[in-house]
Amino acid sequence: MKKIINLKPIGSVKNNIKKLRFGNFTNEVSEIIVNKKFTKALTGIEKYSHIIVVYWMDKIKDYVIIHRPQGNPNVPIVGIFACRCPQRPNPIGITTVKLIGRRGNKLKVKGLDILDRTPIIDIKPYWPQYDKVADGKIPDWVNKLDF
Amino acid sequence: MKKIINLKPIGSVKNNIKKLRFGNFTNEVSEIIVNKKFTKALTGIEKYSHIIVVYWMDKIKDYVIIHRPQGNPNVPIVGIFACRCPQRPNPIGITTVKLIGRRGNKLKVKGLDILDRTPIIDIKPYWPQYDKVADGKIPDWVNKLDF
Repeated sequence: MKKIINLKPIGSVKNNIKKLRFGNFTNEVSEIIVNKKFTKALTGIEKYSHIIVVYWMDKIKDYVIIHRPQGNPNVPIVGIFACRCPQRPNPIGITTVKLIGRRGNKLKVKGLDILDRTPIIDIKPYWPQYDKVADGKIPDWVNKLDF
Repeated sequence: MKKIINLKPIGSVKNNIKKLRFGNFTNEVSEIIVNKKFTKALTGIEKYSHIIVVYWMDKIKDYVIIHRPQGNPNVPIVGIFACRCPQRPNPIGITTVKLIGRRGNKLKVKGLDILDRTPIIDIKPYWPQYDKVADGKIPDWVNKLDF
């Protein structure tokens, strides 16, 4: 197994989120600015209604093994791989967002729940064939979180 | 923007896929072996029916900017960020799979479409609140691919 993996941001995000919070980000508009050498790699993306943004949560300095998500007393203590909290061994986040439009190397999206200037490491189209689960079961406590 | 990001695998996959191919992987069973120091980070994961496996496609040596997905003559040339092909600037893959069971640091999953021994870099539960798009639109050509 390869011991250390190196990756480089392919762009970064610009938005008004200066501080993280829990809750709903559905209406937050962000701009993803892709490195100009990858502008052509966006060809055809405008045909999709949704994309998956993959990013590196660079403000996370340490990870936890188990914790209580959102510090909510009504949810159990679970492992970091059993929740979506950012304090992960590799602080990679994935968020599915609405694609509003593209102008050259810039994508306008809605629903991105990440801090201004977060490095973007990949962009993927949302493919229902891969990404949509008809009958996913989750534990009850997830519904108690602040979405 | 941080220039180089370092990450470490949190585990690796064991399965019978020795060569990549296009097509359907729904019935492929894989074992994800998580580094033992992260065993406790899996606490509670067995309550989910589906998880998202995040991995590093370490056999991909170079990326493309644009190409014709699966070399299929019936689909257009698109940018690498407008398809799910592996030849990406950062060869990170995400696949949603069925979680069959857990035994300590090992997860048995169904539907993982990656090579034996691929490094795993994150594991996330599938949360419909984040991951399920009711009305996602994709370009027609995607339906011509071999799934």
